[in-house]
Amino acid sequence: MDPRMPYSPPSFDNAPLNSSPYAKLVAVSSDGIAPEQFHATSNFPEYINIENHGWVLAPESRMDAALAVDMGAIRVVEPRRLKKGDLVVIGRTENGEEGIFVHPDGFVQSEESGDKFTFRSRGTRETPFSRSYDDLYDILRHDRNHGHIVWVLGPAVSFDKDSRQAMQGLIENGFCHALMAGNALATHDLEASRFGTGLGQDIYSQQLVPLGHYHHLDVISSVRTSGSITKYIADANVQDGIMYACEKTPIPYVLAGSIRDDGPLPGVIGDAYAAQDAMRVHAKQATTVIAMATQLHSIAFGNMVPSYKVQDDGTIRPVFFFIVDMSEFSADKLANRGSAQAQAILTNAQDFIVNLWNNLRG
Amino acid sequence: MDPRMPYSPPSFDNAPLNSSPYAKLVAVSSDGIAPEQFHATSNFPEYINIENHGWVLAPESRMDAALAVDMGAIRVVEPRRLKKGDLVVIGRTENGEEGIFVHPDGFVQSEESGDKFTFRSRGTRETPFSRSYDDLYDILRHDRNHGHIVWVLGPAVSFDKDSRQAMQGLIENGFCHALMAGNALATHDLEASRFGTGLGQDIYSQQLVPLGHYHHLDVISSVRTSGSITKYIADANVQDGIMYACEKTPIPYVLAGSIRDDGPLPGVIGDAYAAQDAMRVHAKQATTVIAMATQLHSIAFGNMVPSYKVQDDGTIRPVFFFIVDMSEFSADKLANRGSAQAQAILTNAQDFIVNLWNNLRG
Amino acid sequence: MDPRMPYSPPSFDNAPLNSSPYAKLVAVSSDGIAPEQFHATSNFPEYINIENHGWVLAPESRMDAALAVDMGAIRVVEPRRLKKGDLVVIGRTENGEEGIFVHPDGFVQSEESGDKFTFRSRGTRETPFSRSYDDLYDILRHDRNHGHIVWVLGPAVSFDKDSRQAMQGLIENGFCHALMAGNALATHDLEASRFGTGLGQDIYSQQLVPLGHYHHLDVISSVRTSGSITKYIADANVQDGIMYACEKTPIPYVLAGSIRDDGPLPGVIGDAYAAQDAMRVHAKQATTVIAMATQLHSIAFGNMVPSYKVQDDGTIRPVFFFIVDMSEFSADKLANRGSAQAQAILTNAQDFIVNLWNNLRG
Amino acid sequence: MDPRMPYSPPSFDNAPLNSSPYAKLVAVSSDGIAPEQFHATSNFPEYINIENHGWVLAPESRMDAALAVDMGAIRVVEPRRLKKGDLVVIGRTENGEEGIFVHPDGFVQSEESGDKFTFRSRGTRETPFSRSYDDLYDILRHDRNHGHIVWVLGPAVSFDKDSRQAMQGLIENGFCHALMAGNALATHDLEASRFGTGLGQDIYSQQLVPLGHYHHLDVISSVRTSGSITKYIADANVQDGIMYACEKTPIPYVLAGSIRDDGPLPGVIGDAYAAQDAMRVHAKQATTVIAMATQLHSIAFGNMVPSYKVQDDGTIRPVFFFIVDMSEFSADKLANRGSAQAQAILTNAQDFIVNLWNNLRG
Repeated sequence: MDPRMPYSPPSFDNAPLNSSPYAKLVAVSSDGIAPEQFHATSNFPEYINIENHGWVLAPESRMDAALAVDMGAIRVVEPRRLKKGDLVVIGRTENGEEGIFVHPDGFVQSEESGDKFTFRSRGTRETPFSRSYDDLYDILRHDRNHGHIVWVLGPAVSFDKDSRQAMQGLIENGFCHALMAGNALATHDLEASRFGTGLGQDIYSQQLVPLGHYHHLDVISSVRTSGSITKYIADANVQDGIMYACEKTPIPYVLAGSIRDDGPLPGVIGDAYAAQDAMRVHAKQATTVIAMATQLHSIAFGNMVPSYKVQDDGTIRPVFFFIVDMSEFSADKLANRGSAQAQAILTNAQDFIVNLWNNLRG
Repeated sequence: MDPRMPYSPPSFDNAPLNSSPYAKLVAVSSDGIAPEQFHATSNFPEYINIENHGWVLAPESRMDAALAVDMGAIRVVEPRRLKKGDLVVIGRTENGEEGIFVHPDGFVQSEESGDKFTFRSRGTRETPFSRSYDDLYDILRHDRNHGHIVWVLGPAVSFDKDSRQAMQGLIENGFCHALMAGNALATHDLEASRFGTGLGQDIYSQQLVPLGHYHHLDVISSVRTSGSITKYIADANVQDGIMYACEKTPIPYVLAGSIRDDGPLPGVIGDAYAAQDAMRVHAKQATTVIAMATQLHSIAFGNMVPSYKVQDDGTIRPVFFFIVDMSEFSADKLANRGSAQAQAILTNAQDFIVNLWNNLRG
Repeated sequence: MDPRMPYSPPSFDNAPLNSSPYAKLVAVSSDGIAPEQFHATSNFPEYINIENHGWVLAPESRMDAALAVDMGAIRVVEPRRLKKGDLVVIGRTENGEEGIFVHPDGFVQSEESGDKFTFRSRGTRETPFSRSYDDLYDILRHDRNHGHIVWVLGPAVSFDKDSRQAMQGLIENGFCHALMAGNALATHDLEASRFGTGLGQDIYSQQLVPLGHYHHLDVISSVRTSGSITKYIADANVQDGIMYACEKTPIPYVLAGSIRDDGPLPGVIGDAYAAQDAMRVHAKQATTVIAMATQLHSIAFGNMVPSYKVQDDGTIRPVFFFIVDMSEFSADKLANRGSAQAQAILTNAQDFIVNLWNNLRG
Repeated sequence: MDPRMPYSPPSFDNAPLNSSPYAKLVAVSSDGIAPEQFHATSNFPEYINIENHGWVLAPESRMDAALAVDMGAIRVVEPRRLKKGDLVVIGRTENGEEGIFVHPDGFVQSEESGDKFTFRSRGTRETPFSRSYDDLYDILRHDRNHGHIVWVLGPAVSFDKDSRQAMQGLIENGFCHALMAGNALATHDLEASRFGTGLGQDIYSQQLVPLGHYHHLDVISSVRTSGSITKYIADANVQDGIMYACEKTPIPYVLAGSIRDDGPLPGVIGDAYAAQDAMRVHAKQATTVIAMATQLHSIAFGNMVPSYKVQDDGTIRPVFFFIVDMSEFSADKLANRGSAQAQAILTNAQDFIVNLWNNLRG
C-alpha cells in the first residue's frame, strides 16, 4: 500500500466507453428527494458521460449519494441535501451503457511491478498484521506532510494511561489532521486530565475510586460552566490528553452527539445530520482514515469517505481506511456496507495505538 | 420475578433515618448547569428528607439526574434541563447522613418466602435461560393489561422473515406499548414490506437480489415523498411488518436519528437531546423494557429507566429490564453503567423473538 | 436444500476428462508417512482415473486425507494410517490433467428449477435464519428415517433445563443417530440428572447451590465407581437427560477426551487419535451433521465429513453440515478450514435446540 | 503485583484454628476413585490439621485435587491418580471446623503499605491495561532469573511474522522456562520456518500462496519422516521460529494432542491424561504463567496451577497467571472455573507479544 501509487484511468477511447450514450439527467422536483432511478454512488471513482463535456470524474465521492450535474461539473450530494431543480444522473448500470462508469481498478498495479496492489480480503483475529502495521507506518509518515490523516475514535482510547498518551503524542507530532469522536471520548479524556480516572476507574491502577462515578458528571458541569472545551482547558489548566493536544496543536475536531450522551459538553453537535455535514467536510479531505473502537462513528464516517482523492495538482491517489476493532462482526459490518477499501486490524485499541506511537515517535 | 411483588419501604422511624438532617438545597445559577456537589440519582428508589415535609420518594428516577425540590415535591431532572433558580439537592452520601437515602432493597422478599428475589448476577452465553424466558412470559402476560411494555429495537429483527412476523404479532396482540428504535429499523422494515429484502438480501431465502442495495434508498425516497411513515403506509398499501403494526394498533414509537443514518425518514428525530426527551416520556411509564440487539439505544434507554414505578394507586412495583444481545461485552457494558436491574439474555435476537411469540401467541 | 436433490456427475466423455492420463501411484515407504507430492483430498467428490479401471469416485472422502488405490478401489486414508506398500495417488492439480478430478458442482441444480442450490456464503448474526431453520426441519424429518443424523455437542446444551429436555426429546424421537461430545457434556448432563445443577448452578433457577462445585466431582466419582455410564444410569436410577436418552434409545456416542477434563468418566477415549478413529466411523455414515457450541469438536468432525454420500443403492446425495455458535470467528474458522458446505447459524445453542424441538415434536 | 511480596500465614494460635479438630482421613478403596466427601482443593494455600503433626501446608496445590496424607506430609493428587489405600482428607468446610483451612488472603498487604494488593476483578476490553503491562514487565524481569515462567500458547502467535519473532526473542532471552502448546502451534511454526506461511497464507504479506494448503501437510510429512522435531530442525536446517528457539536454548515443551490435529507431529502426546501429567510437572514449578489465545490449553493449565509457590528456601511467593484473549467470554470462563488469581488482558496475541518483546528486549 503506497500513497504514491499511480492511478490508471479507464480507457475512454476503446469500446464500450467510446460509444456510450450521455447520461440521462432528471430535475429534482422537491427538496431533499432524489428522482426515481437516480444513480447512487459507490466510494470508487465514477465517471459520467455528460453531454457537451464527455466523461467527467465525480470528485470526492461517497457511498449512496446522488450526482448533480451543473455546467459539466459534478457535485456528489446526499439525497437529503438535493434542491429542487438540481439535475441528477439517472441510471443503475455501472459499465457505461447508460453513460455511467464505475472504476474500481484504478490502483491495481501491473503484474510486472511484483507487488500487486489489492484491497485485501477481510481479516480475522488470526490474520497476520505485521505488514498492516508496516504499511500504516509508511503511510502515516508520508501523509503527515503530504496528506490529511483523520482519526475516528471511540471512547476506549481515553480509558488507559498509555494509550491516551500515545494518542496525544500522535496529535502533537502531526499524525492527526482532524479528529472525529463523540461526547464520551471528550468527556472521559477531560475526566482523566482532572482526576486521573475514566468513569471513576483509575486509568493506570485500575482501582475504582470512591465516589468516582461523580467525576464524569463534575467534569461535564465544569465544562458547561466554562462554556466551551477551549475555555475549560484554560480555566482548569489542563496540561495533557487528547482534547488538550487538539486544542494546543491545534487540529479541528468534530464531536457528534448521540442519545447515549450525558451533558453534553458544549461544542457537541446534537443534530445528527448537522454532525454528518461537519464530518463530511473532513471526509472529503481525508487521505488516510483510522477508525478505532467505535462501530457507530466508523460506519458513519466510512459511508462518507471516497476511496480516492483528487489532489491539488490534479493527480489521483488512493485513500486508505483502517478499522481497528476487537470484533470480527463490527469490522465485517463496516466492510459489508460498502467501504470497499476498508482494512481491518482486529485488536484492542490500547495496544494498537501504543504500538503505533512506539514506532512513529522516532 | 413477579410484577406483583410487594415493595418494602425503608424504616424511617428507626436510626439512623429518624435523626437524619434535612437535605441541603442549592439554587441553580445558570440554566443547564448543576450546582457543585449536586446529588446524582441512581435508578433505585431514593428518599429525600425535605424540610417541613419529611422523607419524600423521588418519583420516576433515572441514572445521573439531579433532584429539584419544589414545595415538597421532587422532580428528577437531567442537569442540562435545570433552570436558573431550581433548588437542587446537594450531597453525595446515600445512607441518610445528608438527608438522602438510596434504597436498593425494596423488592427483596423475606427469606421465608422461599424464592428470594434478587436482581441476578451477570449471565454469559452459558447461563441457563429457561427461567429467564418463563419469567418473561409471566411478566409480559401480566403487563399486557396491567403495565407498560417498552421495546428498544436494533435493526436486526427486521432482517429476518420469522422474527419480523413475531415482532408484528407481539405488537398487534398488546405485548408492546411503545417502541424505541432508530432510522435503520424503520427503513429496513419498510424495505421488507415492499421488496421482501433487508439491505437487498431476501429476508427468507438469504439471496442477494440484483441491484438490491437500491431498495434501501428507494424506500427512503418514497417515504420522504409521502411525507410521513403513516402516509407512506397508506400510499404504498403496506400490509405487514413492524411499522405497519405500530401504526395500525396504534402504539407510539420514537425513532432517534444517528450519524449513521441514510435519509432520514420523516419523523426521525435528528437532534439527539430532543430524542432523549421523547424517549424519556416512555421511560417514565415503563414497567418492563426489552432492549434487543442495539448497544446504542439500550444504553441510552437504560440510563433513563427507573428500577421501580409508583402506580396510579400509589403502590410501588419493580420495573424489569431485559437486554438481549449476542455479546457479553455489550450486555456487561450496559450493566456496568448502572442499570442495576438489567438482566441479560445472550442470544440472537431472531431466536429470542420467535421463542417469545411462539409461547405468548397461544 | 433438499436431501433428494439429484447428483450430476462430471462428463467423462468430453474434453479434458476423456483424454486425462491415469493418475500416478507411489508406494508408501514407511508406515504413517505420505509420499511426497501426495494428493490431499477435499470433502468434495473426487474422481481418480485408475489404470485399467477408468474414473473411480472416492467414497467417503474427508479433508486432507490420502487416496490409497487397491485393485481399482479407492480408500480415503488419513496419512498417519497409511501402511508401508500402500499405493497412493500423486498429484496436486484438480482438473484432470494428472488423472485427478475434483467435482464441487455435483449438486448445483439447473437454472430452470428455480431454486438454485448453492452452498451459501458465510452468515453473520444479522443473516436471516428463517429459511435455515425451515431447511433444517425438512432435512431432519427426512433424514430421521432415510439418513444418518450426527450431533456434535459442546457442554452448553446441558446447562439449561429446557435445552437439555429438547435434546433428550430429539434423541428419543429419532432425530439423532449418533452423538459426538466430550467428557464435559456427559459429566454436566449427569450432574443435572442427579442434582439439577450444572457446575453447581441450578439449571432452571440460575441459583448457585452451596457446595455445588462438588456436584461435578461427586458425579465423576460415582460413575467411576459404577464403572461405566451405562451401569451408573442403572445404579443411580437416572431418568432424564441426554446420556439417559442415548442409552435408552439406544444410539451410539463417542466421548473424546481432552486436557481440560476432570475425571474422566469411564468410556471417554483419552487418546486423541483413537477418538478421531471412533468419530470417523460416524463421519462416514453421516447425512446431516449439527455441530453446536464447540469449536474443538466442530472443527475436528468437520475435517472428517464428506460433502456427499454414496447411498446403499449407489445414488449420491448431499451431506449437510450446520454449525451453531455465538461467534462469527468460530463459525468462520470452521468454514475457512475447508468444510465448504458448512452453514452457520449464529445464535445461542439453548435457543436453537428449543426452537428445533418445538417445531419437530409436533 | 510483586513477586517479592511477603506471605502472611494464618494465625494458628488464635481461635478458631487453635481449637480445630484433626482432619478426618479415609482410605481409598479402589484405584482412581476418591472417597465420598473427599475434600477438593482450590488453588489457594490450604492447611490441614494432621494428627501428631499439626497444621501442614499443602504444597503445589491445584483445582479439584484430593489431598493424600502420608507420615505428616501432604500430596496433592488428581482423583484419577489415587491408589488404593491412600489416606485422603475428608471434609468440605474451609474454615477449620473439620481441620481444613483455606487461606486466600496470604498475599494481602497491610493497609499502611498504601498499595493494597488484590487479585483484581475481571477486565473487559475497556479496562486500562497500562499497569497490567508494567506489572508484567517487572515480573518477567524478576522471574527470568528467580522464577519459572511458563507460556501456554495457542497457534495464533505463529501466524504473524513479528509476533513469531517476538516469541522467539523471549525464549532465547530467558523469558520462557517452559512452553505448553498443541500440535497446531508447532506445525504452523515449522511451516513458517520452511515456507514463510501459516496454513498457506504468507505470514507477512497476507497473500494466499498457490497450493499453500499443502505446506501444512508437507511439513507434517517431513517431520514424521525425520522422526522428531529435534531431528527435523537439524535435517531441514531450520534457523528461526518458536520451536527452533525451544530446541536451541533449550527449554522443555509439552505438545498435547487433540482431536483437531493433523499428523500429529512426532512428540505430540496423544493421550490427554498423559499430556495432563506432563503439563502438571511444569504447573508445579511455575511462578508466572502467560496463557495466550487458547481456551482449551488455558483452562487445562489454569486448573493445574497453584496461586502460591513454596520456594527452595521455604518462603512462599505468589504465582501470577495472565490470560491474553480477544474474548471476554473466554477470559471469564477461565476465571469462573476457579483460577482465582487469573488476570485477563483482552487483546490480540500478536500485539501483546510484540509489545512485551519491545519492552523487555532492552
